[in-house]
Amino acid sequence: MSLTLFIGNKAYSSWSLRPWLLMRALDIPFTEVVTPLYVDGSRERMLREAPTGKVPVLRAGDFAVWDSLAIVEYLAEAFPDKNIWPRGKENRARARSLCAEMHSGFQALRQACPTNFRRARRAAPLGLEEAARADLARVQAIFAQAGKSFLFGDFCAADAFFAPVVSRLDTYALELEPAARAYCDRILALPAFRQWREDAKAESWVIDRWEDL
Amino acid sequence: MSLTLFIGNKAYSSWSLRPWLLMRALDIPFTEVVTPLYVDGSRERMLREAPTGKVPVLRAGDFAVWDSLAIVEYLAEAFPDKNIWPRGKENRARARSLCAEMHSGFQALRQACPTNFRRARRAAPLGLEEAARADLARVQAIFAQAGKSFLFGDFCAADAFFAPVVSRLDTYALELEPAARAYCDRILALPAFRQWREDAKAESWVIDRWEDL
Repeated sequence: MSLTLFIGNKAYSSWSLRPWLLMRALDIPFTEVVTPLYVDGSRERMLREAPTGKVPVLRAGDFAVWDSLAIVEYLAEAFPDKNIWPRGKENRARARSLCAEMHSGFQALRQACPTNFRRARRAAPLGLEEAARADLARVQAIFAQAGKSFLFGDFCAADAFFAPVVSRLDTYALELEPAARAYCDRILALPAFRQWREDAKAESWVIDRWEDL
Repeated sequence: MSLTLFIGNKAYSSWSLRPWLLMRALDIPFTEVVTPLYVDGSRERMLREAPTGKVPVLRAGDFAVWDSLAIVEYLAEAFPDKNIWPRGKENRARARSLCAEMHSGFQALRQACPTNFRRARRAAPLGLEEAARADLARVQAIFAQAGKSFLFGDFCAADAFFAPVVSRLDTYALELEPAARAYCDRILALPAFRQWREDAKAESWVIDRWEDL
């Protein structure tokens, strides 16, 4: 089966990073197509791939799966030996709960610290408001569960879903407890994660409103 | 396995409706526990059930699954004969794409038309802005795919995920194309949906900011 993953700019598209990192880290072969966000024609181009006009989209042959969570579930069915979800129904349920929590939550932290893989490491100019600090506390509690490995032992979809937050914590130089710091360092050291960051640095597209923070 | 579903007020909690309706419509037995939203102690009560402090939460024995999407996946694994997802990997991927799209999208329509099962049927006082009209167009395109049945033939998780939107379209008397109207009428006629609405009408809790629209 030939897989094509449509993603946005690597500098900014946190949603694109999730399935990309998962597939790269688990050695699932795919072709990548980058469509820069918010430039003339980019939405129209993506509307030809999927009805939302958004990235990421996974094309399998002539069939499209849109949205990062649905892509992960599709891959989990297609590659059962890759352990995209952890073993054991309770661990799977916990991993899915975390991914779903990330999928619709953490808005305050996202807004205060937009993903920008090219940004020099420095604090957010305005600091964090209470809601963003609560998000940060929750993220640290999740990361602390990882112990000395990834969230559920081997790297899985839940780690891929939280990887953009790891990038934000790093980029905005947020102070972390040791267990959360250690988990972040494990993600930052992944060859696939480092590759994404290198690719982001080589991009020329700039979106001003995400460069001001 | 004994299942308990923790939900918010039926008058307002669109997220709670999704797993509740799915389980009722597919005859999956469970005990319901209603914790009214935004009253003293309600968040603390839910924090004892799951780390987000939010509804819905499914408790299976002493194990908790939080977030509507993770609950659906847990149930799909636990009850494979209930066809919670449609048959066929492509249909499953489409159904999951739709659920994920709903899970993190349609914010403009949600904000313009908050869920309120007790509200008398009438138009939104301010009408719909462009983003909400775009959401409405997308919802109608999705509903039109149902043809003469539910979204993927028999009632499944995708229908449960869009049921709160059906309620909004009805409550705010939005004008619909015939195919979308027919789909909405099918959802509105479900015995489980009607039961939820009756239960909502019998509730005494009132949240003012959702009653002003």
